[in-house]
Amino acid sequence: MTTAHDDATTDEFSMASVDVEEVEQLLLGDFPDVRRDAREQMKDPQFHKIEGLSTEDQRERTYKQLIALTESGSVHRAFPAEFGGQDAHGANIASFEELVTADPSLQIKAGVQWGLFGAAVMHLGSHEHHGRFLPGIMDLSVPGAYAMTEFGHGSDVAALGTTATYDPQTQEFVVHTPFTAATKRFLGNAALHAKAAVVFAQLITQGVNHGVHCFYMDIRDDSGEPLEGITITDDGHKGGLNGVDNGQVSFDQVRIPRTNLLNRYGDVDAEGTYYSSIESPGRRFFTMLGTLVQGRVSLTGAAVSASKLGLVGAITYGNQRRQFNAASPTEEEVLLDYQLHQRRLIPRLATTYAASFAHEKLLAKLDEVFSGRDGSDENRQELETLAAAIKPTTTWHALDALQEAREACGGAGYISENRFTSLHADLDVYVTFEGDNNVLLQLVAKRLLADYAAEFKDADVGALASYVANQASDTVMHRFGLRRALQEVRDTGNERRSANWFKQPEVQHGLLAGRVRQLVADVATELRSVAKLSPQQQADKFNEHQYEIISAAKAHADLLLWESFTDALERIKDPGTVQVLTWLRDIFALSQIEDSLGWYLSNGRMSSQRARTLAPYINRLVARVRPHAQDLVDSFGFAPEHVRMEVASGAEKARQDEAMDYYRRLRASSEAPVDEKTLVDRKRAANKSRKK
Amino acid sequence: MTTAHDDATTDEFSMASVDVEEVEQLLLGDFPDVRRDAREQMKDPQFHKIEGLSTEDQRERTYKQLIALTESGSVHRAFPAEFGGQDAHGANIASFEELVTADPSLQIKAGVQWGLFGAAVMHLGSHEHHGRFLPGIMDLSVPGAYAMTEFGHGSDVAALGTTATYDPQTQEFVVHTPFTAATKRFLGNAALHAKAAVVFAQLITQGVNHGVHCFYMDIRDDSGEPLEGITITDDGHKGGLNGVDNGQVSFDQVRIPRTNLLNRYGDVDAEGTYYSSIESPGRRFFTMLGTLVQGRVSLTGAAVSASKLGLVGAITYGNQRRQFNAASPTEEEVLLDYQLHQRRLIPRLATTYAASFAHEKLLAKLDEVFSGRDGSDENRQELETLAAAIKPTTTWHALDALQEAREACGGAGYISENRFTSLHADLDVYVTFEGDNNVLLQLVAKRLLADYAAEFKDADVGALASYVANQASDTVMHRFGLRRALQEVRDTGNERRSANWFKQPEVQHGLLAGRVRQLVADVATELRSVAKLSPQQQADKFNEHQYEIISAAKAHADLLLWESFTDALERIKDPGTVQVLTWLRDIFALSQIEDSLGWYLSNGRMSSQRARTLAPYINRLVARVRPHAQDLVDSFGFAPEHVRMEVASGAEKARQDEAMDYYRRLRASSEAPVDEKTLVDRKRAANKSRKK
Repeated sequence: MTTAHDDATTDEFSMASVDVEEVEQLLLGDFPDVRRDAREQMKDPQFHKIEGLSTEDQRERTYKQLIALTESGSVHRAFPAEFGGQDAHGANIASFEELVTADPSLQIKAGVQWGLFGAAVMHLGSHEHHGRFLPGIMDLSVPGAYAMTEFGHGSDVAALGTTATYDPQTQEFVVHTPFTAATKRFLGNAALHAKAAVVFAQLITQGVNHGVHCFYMDIRDDSGEPLEGITITDDGHKGGLNGVDNGQVSFDQVRIPRTNLLNRYGDVDAEGTYYSSIESPGRRFFTMLGTLVQGRVSLTGAAVSASKLGLVGAITYGNQRRQFNAASPTEEEVLLDYQLHQRRLIPRLATTYAASFAHEKLLAKLDEVFSGRDGSDENRQELETLAAAIKPTTTWHALDALQEAREACGGAGYISENRFTSLHADLDVYVTFEGDNNVLLQLVAKRLLADYAAEFKDADVGALASYVANQASDTVMHRFGLRRALQEVRDTGNERRSANWFKQPEVQHGLLAGRVRQLVADVATELRSVAKLSPQQQADKFNEHQYEIISAAKAHADLLLWESFTDALERIKDPGTVQVLTWLRDIFALSQIEDSLGWYLSNGRMSSQRARTLAPYINRLVARVRPHAQDLVDSFGFAPEHVRMEVASGAEKARQDEAMDYYRRLRASSEAPVDEKTLVDRKRAANKSRKK
Repeated sequence: MTTAHDDATTDEFSMASVDVEEVEQLLLGDFPDVRRDAREQMKDPQFHKIEGLSTEDQRERTYKQLIALTESGSVHRAFPAEFGGQDAHGANIASFEELVTADPSLQIKAGVQWGLFGAAVMHLGSHEHHGRFLPGIMDLSVPGAYAMTEFGHGSDVAALGTTATYDPQTQEFVVHTPFTAATKRFLGNAALHAKAAVVFAQLITQGVNHGVHCFYMDIRDDSGEPLEGITITDDGHKGGLNGVDNGQVSFDQVRIPRTNLLNRYGDVDAEGTYYSSIESPGRRFFTMLGTLVQGRVSLTGAAVSASKLGLVGAITYGNQRRQFNAASPTEEEVLLDYQLHQRRLIPRLATTYAASFAHEKLLAKLDEVFSGRDGSDENRQELETLAAAIKPTTTWHALDALQEAREACGGAGYISENRFTSLHADLDVYVTFEGDNNVLLQLVAKRLLADYAAEFKDADVGALASYVANQASDTVMHRFGLRRALQEVRDTGNERRSANWFKQPEVQHGLLAGRVRQLVADVATELRSVAKLSPQQQADKFNEHQYEIISAAKAHADLLLWESFTDALERIKDPGTVQVLTWLRDIFALSQIEDSLGWYLSNGRMSSQRARTLAPYINRLVARVRPHAQDLVDSFGFAPEHVRMEVASGAEKARQDEAMDYYRRLRASSEAPVDEKTLVDRKRAANKSRKK
């Protein structure tokens, strides 16, 4: 597999290996025991999704799974110790995301109950609310919905239409749906099981709208009928997650006690006067929404797990399945020996590793913030930006990896027993819920632009312009040693020299970070002069760069993944493993760069000679990692009870062995038919020799 | 929307419009009446998929739909007139692909019965077979399976394991499954309904294996039980198409009459002597397989229709749905006014148009070949290569367009009533069945390489090398006027000049065709010296370039789509429509070029100054097409009964209007609450003036 223009030495090839145990431990992150416990629990068949059930049966089954989970107590870690929880936020999510291997519907229905409904009471309510509501939420005697999204507003929560108007006469809030578009929609638990809900509505008192607040409301009576003034309808069948009963809820002047306002960040006294510890209505709103970040973090973890499952299936099958005999008349090629197959699966394996490491960083940050170890505003915002960048990248990656894995298994990939299509269908909505991916990327981009503006607050336009012009050659190069790297290697198009350049972490970082930096700088420069324009013109100008802005945010997320992967490499002890995972990290980096190669070239970040060597180098890298591909998916640490795919069960190898054995015995016997083709060839040869 | 550096004149903007009727007619292709009839029939609710049914109920429903279709007679067009058909091959497929709007399971189950099972009898059987089998196939009294694929072999049909060994004693073939991997799998109709099957097996007689032939076999008795020696099992639940009952079939020494061999291309006489009109076993095999091309063509058409449905949904919704108020305090923006939304949907609309035009070309070619107007070997091979290129591109595009459309509708896109997820799930398998997309692309690439080799048969290596080196500057440029184009415009990075360059069809063709040409030439050069190597080394060498080879085939397909789109433009009369569709064609071309920009730059096909203007130019083009987007999807000519999506029903507009009306009336009344934010701003302003 080595070639003359290869950058790797024979030693590097021979020492490369994967210490599966060490990598498995590394991938378990900061909460290995919690994860192991959760995986152990998820081996139980009662939690496993059954394909092809009717919607009704699937909902019923998921509800029963939820009861079983409740009884095990494993889902209460995030709640206060006072109520039987452990105040353990990171561990809670680490455990929670493992549910996805059993059934994504279970994960999401559990997430609605404890991660959204319960978490809203915990984070937005007072201690008194905790005492009143948490016990019923925790033991599932009060299933609940998280009533935020409306027909008319999903991403723009501040503009929700539902109103909660205070009536001092009776000391009640009157909750109301003033028009159809204000009907709550897509609420998990609402169609069937929810007895209560946390309802987000515009709080109006004394003629003033104080913005969106959260109210605890009973919505069904003990017989399961909607309470008076409340209309509930079923969202119906969905593309996936049909174990979750999503529904629509509207309110016709429904009265609730004043004390049902979850009042941690804003309260109304008996007379109707509004109080809040946070003066700015904007900041108050974002503080309340900030508690949503947990959902994004847990979806990220679940998406990474689903990507891993997909690759376990496709890579195991690719190592056993044979098709076409290119080199031998009797033995067919194993799929994963085809370059195209390597190119389809191994870069996705690299991204999965990068995503897994990035998710662990995010989880650690969440634990830091929610445990109060560093709950500062700044750290909180950092967590939110990090989640807003990594959630889109990982959830889109999961769909991409599952789809490619399914296609790489051909028809077998389409059969539900192999779970690719089922996981894809269930995970599909992860890219648009809990923050639509593209909307989250806009938040990231705005933060990047704000940071950039802050850095150059005192610089004048001229200085800024020259910074933009020079940064490729100065700042970036100095910071990451790029200049040295550039000087060392001449652009002769020599493949080995090029490879030696591409494999340097400083070069990879310089390219990835330099791209983020320049994209941000370019947009910032374009937007500098907008302050004087009308709101319409400002909006137009911003819109003209929206596509570019989103590219910057995506590039930023790629960089975060790269940094997480690179950090993880330093924690590995076994040198053979370091070698293989370094190749894998390089594949991740270079695949991202290959995807944006046009940008790198048109912005003078790379010569065209060097660019031409990139694809062949990636081809060589995937071939190098190929012998270790099985170890790399085995390191995910899933047991057969988690994988549950025929393609990963070894059945294909047994079939191939049986077939090869049959043909071997046939050839050895006297009964083997001769191929007509062989006869034709013999005849042709005989004719030829006769002519001579 | 026009800007200073725009290439389009004010006149062009003002005249741009879409003559919906003319475009609709154009898109209906060569068989407008047949298509209209089929669409009329598909308005009937009995043919419409119902979401969320159990597998059992869905299979039952699809079978009933098939009976209804049979009664209408609309599915018999391809069969001989003698048996009640019309010998109309192109029209048959044009009609057949419209079924997808009703229910893809119906399309595929119908395809199995008449397009595969029936077509095998028709194309591989003799006139006597037609008389014996076609009537029962046509009237569905004999539902059948197409038993080609096995556990062990899907793409490599020549290596099937099932054997049919001739026994001259009884004048029977003995059909046998010698090992597990030779079990037939994924056979539509097999799990429940098939009474018979056409079975592909290695024909062995007199100790010689004559390769894969096709046999007609009964597989179930009248009570529905498998016949003796035949084992049938259910493939189970799938990622989609659960109206089709796929199953597995194996044979234990099952005897069938000699005359059940479908003997058009090869026959065995009573004594066991084999005869064939085609001497070469290889050519004979490919001739038999050639009849499969119909399936590929019809999947292409269905994929184009599904892409259209997805875009009707997402673009209609994007024109009505509002979110965030960037420019106005009271009115929110329509989604399709966001640049990102335009970038997500309009290039996919352009590809859909290109794919639609390319499919019509393919269909015309199929009709030419199968009608016998030009059934020459050469034309047949051209048809097969064309289908092998266009089927992958269009089926992948369908998945991509449906997924993006679903995401562009947010949560609503995930609800089954909007059909995006359902269509995606059903169409998913189109990319790996009837020829795995990547395997088909390899066939295309091999043909490109063969054509290239033929062209340079007599050239020596030196001449070839210099051709490769010079072709960018010579051949391509002369052929497509690129040199002139290059000379006219200087690379100053001037956006208007660049746009004027990019919009020239000669330039677009030169770039797209030049890429195919060079990719092929590069690989051909690398592979020139392999003839002397061992089979293993040859295989390795080929494998080292597999990824590049597939890129060449994909680039070739893009070029075919571009040419079809460009040809179609010449058939449009209305100048406003020509303008809009030309922009759309440009978007298609430039999006493909943008996707491979790294290649164009690193191969010196474009300067970096010019490359930097490409993305902004595409941004402007999508904004130009945006006002016509609704007309462009309305031109697909679907009635509400075909679309059946809540997002495309106008319901969203009604909800938005109601909400806006509510707020308008509230503002006009004295009851509107004041926003806290407004109060804060007022207070701040008052404090400021007090300080003065």
